[in-house]
Amino acid sequence: MLSFTVQSLDEAVMEEARQYINSLTKPPGSLGRLEDIAIQLAGMTGQIKPDITPGILVFAADHGVVAENVSASPQSVTREMAINMVEGGAGISVFGKMIGAAVDVYDVGMLQDVSSEKVIKKKVRMGTGNIVKECAMTVEEAWKTIEIGYEAAKQAIARDVRCLIVGELGIGNTTTSSAILSVLLDIDPQSVVGRGSGINDQQLQNKIEVCREAISHHQPKKHDAIDILSKIGGLDIAAMTGAMIAAAELRVPILLDGFICTVSACLAKLLAPGSEHYMLVSHQSVEPGHISASELLGKRALIGLDLRLGEGTGAAIAYPIVQAANVMVKNMATFDSANVSQN
Amino acid sequence: MLSFTVQSLDEAVMEEARQYINSLTKPPGSLGRLEDIAIQLAGMTGQIKPDITPGILVFAADHGVVAENVSASPQSVTREMAINMVEGGAGISVFGKMIGAAVDVYDVGMLQDVSSEKVIKKKVRMGTGNIVKECAMTVEEAWKTIEIGYEAAKQAIARDVRCLIVGELGIGNTTTSSAILSVLLDIDPQSVVGRGSGINDQQLQNKIEVCREAISHHQPKKHDAIDILSKIGGLDIAAMTGAMIAAAELRVPILLDGFICTVSACLAKLLAPGSEHYMLVSHQSVEPGHISASELLGKRALIGLDLRLGEGTGAAIAYPIVQAANVMVKNMATFDSANVSQN
Repeated sequence: MLSFTVQSLDEAVMEEARQYINSLTKPPGSLGRLEDIAIQLAGMTGQIKPDITPGILVFAADHGVVAENVSASPQSVTREMAINMVEGGAGISVFGKMIGAAVDVYDVGMLQDVSSEKVIKKKVRMGTGNIVKECAMTVEEAWKTIEIGYEAAKQAIARDVRCLIVGELGIGNTTTSSAILSVLLDIDPQSVVGRGSGINDQQLQNKIEVCREAISHHQPKKHDAIDILSKIGGLDIAAMTGAMIAAAELRVPILLDGFICTVSACLAKLLAPGSEHYMLVSHQSVEPGHISASELLGKRALIGLDLRLGEGTGAAIAYPIVQAANVMVKNMATFDSANVSQN
Repeated sequence: MLSFTVQSLDEAVMEEARQYINSLTKPPGSLGRLEDIAIQLAGMTGQIKPDITPGILVFAADHGVVAENVSASPQSVTREMAINMVEGGAGISVFGKMIGAAVDVYDVGMLQDVSSEKVIKKKVRMGTGNIVKECAMTVEEAWKTIEIGYEAAKQAIARDVRCLIVGELGIGNTTTSSAILSVLLDIDPQSVVGRGSGINDQQLQNKIEVCREAISHHQPKKHDAIDILSKIGGLDIAAMTGAMIAAAELRVPILLDGFICTVSACLAKLLAPGSEHYMLVSHQSVEPGHISASELLGKRALIGLDLRLGEGTGAAIAYPIVQAANVMVKNMATFDSANVSQN
């Protein structure tokens, strides 16, 4: 069992950043949210002009709840897409390349093995249990999976990653995330369940019922992330949670993706209070629960492009906006240095 | 006097692009607006996987209306910032560099000359007239300035620019743009005038009055872009309009910046109907008139980050989103090529 310590943001450096940004050659406040991002990055890293080299970790796992007909995609897609990711053809592969970030794909619990050496093998179990009937995993497995994510992030950071993007791959994982969020918010799943990869009205109703059944069967404790993870899952979500905690402990900014990622972040907040201060929500997903999950973190998304692909893609697509904030503080001239008159 | 011919979007290639995007390894529609952007780029360029190498043109000019105390910045800032831009310290300089785009700065009408050779000298006149008392420029000057912008874009495209960003620099140009938009929409300036670089309530009221006076004095014809440009201005806006028309004629996508740029785009639409189909609105500006100007083009912004700097910065910051759409069609695998099962 791990215990976590997350430092507060550096308020003094944030104030310094705020003043420095006001000295740059532009009307005060005219770069809007970029200025806020730069101030937050300063508080996270303790530096006004931090290095924010991006790196992407994708955790792949299967979800036993797929047996309940909750997904539009066949379960084999988890494994097929893991191969596609490491071969460079998936969304996260191409957007990762666009932003100059390596993509590490971890098997933390796929049903089928992948022979490719490019997939990092850290399987904890062959998918989660079907949560309407059994626990997703044991408490020990939940901790073990968190630790895998935690170590994966530490390794990435040791390799000089300074802005962490955490993605997931797992058919059925919007069902798991919706059930978790319902528990965290103590609300009926109807308010947060969405169409995932594209289910119809009847399947949507079934997905809501499945979440209700799982919650009613297990009665997970809303303040206990390990209880939630072991009873509801998933392995991908547990690993993401661990990765975020490691980044927060090491004061590395975390750029969150969409619904599943943000739900994992809520669990990280429970396990390591204060870790949420090291997070930015990249995009507003189409999944209806995403905005509630963001609010639980006290965050507002940077962009909204009606994305719902997952894998970390939204975060990779939004990364250049964070980069723009960083480039602003690093490279813009000041009124003094450029001899520009101030108002 | 120029006459313009803009081709329609290539609907057949758009349909091809739509089908191709549905064959990529992701749930159909899950990349949201990126998919729409890729389809629009296909229609503009006639290619499913177009080259979209970015290039930035900034047109700098002064506005005689500054004599009416409409701006928070002293007029000397136009010249000072032109130098800062070519020296690499302005917002557009650093965001241009971030996206790999050259920034060409044109003097189309600054009051003061700039000695730097890096500023391209195409001054039509020393700033516009004070529009509450006189015309901004003559009809001949309006045409001449449009032609300078038109030729600037043609040259950039000859140098292999395949996605055009057009920016402006000119203290007072939100006043000019607000007056133009009021004419185009036939509404009172109160609905569209904003705080520009940061004026107070009293200055805002004055800015509204100044726009009203200029319009009432000149009575520009709402369907006649040249009448509007010569009576209201400005030189920066006329050059931007010309640049956009050239890009549209050559089927090169135009990524619009904020308020001033979008108002120029509305004039391009008047002068060269159909040119608006070659435009994307990058960001939703804080300036209240921006959304009306976007609607006049039938467009919705890609992002909203509360920006209000101008110079083309919002377009440069949003360019990576357009690039993501392009990278999606260029580099993602198809279900067939990657052996991934479809729903």
